[in-house]
Amino acid sequence: MTDESLKVDDSNESKKKLPKPTQERLIKLLSVLDQLEKENQKLITPKTTVTSAIIEHRTGWSRDTVRRDISLLDLQCGSSVGYNIAELKKAIQQKFNIGERIHNCCIVGLGRLGSALLYFEGFKETPFVMRAGFDSNVNRTEVLDSPFPLYPLSKMESVVKNEKIDFAVLAVPEGDAVETAERLAKCGIKGIVNYTMAVLNLPPYIRVENISIVDALQRVSVHVE
Amino acid sequence: MTDESLKVDDSNESKKKLPKPTQERLIKLLSVLDQLEKENQKLITPKTTVTSAIIEHRTGWSRDTVRRDISLLDLQCGSSVGYNIAELKKAIQQKFNIGERIHNCCIVGLGRLGSALLYFEGFKETPFVMRAGFDSNVNRTEVLDSPFPLYPLSKMESVVKNEKIDFAVLAVPEGDAVETAERLAKCGIKGIVNYTMAVLNLPPYIRVENISIVDALQRVSVHVE
Repeated sequence: MTDESLKVDDSNESKKKLPKPTQERLIKLLSVLDQLEKENQKLITPKTTVTSAIIEHRTGWSRDTVRRDISLLDLQCGSSVGYNIAELKKAIQQKFNIGERIHNCCIVGLGRLGSALLYFEGFKETPFVMRAGFDSNVNRTEVLDSPFPLYPLSKMESVVKNEKIDFAVLAVPEGDAVETAERLAKCGIKGIVNYTMAVLNLPPYIRVENISIVDALQRVSVHVE
Repeated sequence: MTDESLKVDDSNESKKKLPKPTQERLIKLLSVLDQLEKENQKLITPKTTVTSAIIEHRTGWSRDTVRRDISLLDLQCGSSVGYNIAELKKAIQQKFNIGERIHNCCIVGLGRLGSALLYFEGFKETPFVMRAGFDSNVNRTEVLDSPFPLYPLSKMESVVKNEKIDFAVLAVPEGDAVETAERLAKCGIKGIVNYTMAVLNLPPYIRVENISIVDALQRVSVHVE
């Protein structure tokens, strides 16, 4: 897999061939640039630049890594005077089609965690828009307050189709996760953010990101004696 | 980094040299085995085995990958008749020191997301024990119901030290994340699970796992046209 992901391809499909760590750093770099802009609102102009040294300081990635990652983008400006922040953001967004179109999303499972996300404000400046929430407990979908419609789980297939929902956030009880994910896959969902501990084995064209807190703590603890 | 991580080392330090994808799969494999056991409680005996084909079916990892990962463990039994589930679990736990000792954890930031984790039941069969929660809003720490003590943020340094807390779950507002993480680092915390979008640049001996929902959605969406 490592060998495969290191292949370089200059065709239009090239973004799919970037090494995965580079992809993840570049996507994260967008957040870093956003954060820099927020902190320095009064200082930032369309000409403001950022150096690889500043990025190194903010992220811990070496400046060589930063320069190499950025060199894989279609960016005109050189790095000797730093990268123009606005251009750099645009180049990353173009590389990954970020922000070019809205992605409709849904939350499946409205227990403590799922319902905590109903009023999450972090989606505001992102291309992700929550369109629907689902729960098998009709009481919950009727009682919970939400800025977007909530439905019983039995309506999932029709709502996902009608609302053209691309991505689902899965926050159901662990025992229901595999079956619910398979139902989502059959609805034509393109990706799942999995808050549960369950291992989802879906067709390869459905991308899954596992972000259960226990998995994260286990990864964090692996290097600790 | 890829070259480095592929080096094999037979010393006691060998677990640190496993390739990162192998580490992540083996840790995830523990969850898969737990899930298998839960689903088949009546069928499982101390002699029950699992084949690489079953693991492939559950996870989507090829059976060659599964066999190669497992071959890096100190496991006696061969794979021709499958792996003994109990022995396989033990070997993974030993490799990563999982379950050998309790890890004390805390939640920092008790807004919607942080407080949703207060009664999270998924820690039950893990080595992670929540010992404390912190919030800068004293009203919250006094009013919220919790199975473990909640403190004002000003007490974080002393409580982390006295309770010997290893890991923190960071769920503060994004604007407070960098400063709070640096305070945690100075307290001697060993790892942070970061629910915020903020980029944390901490000393290399502090492990950070970023699991913000926006980052996860962005990673999921990268491969989607």
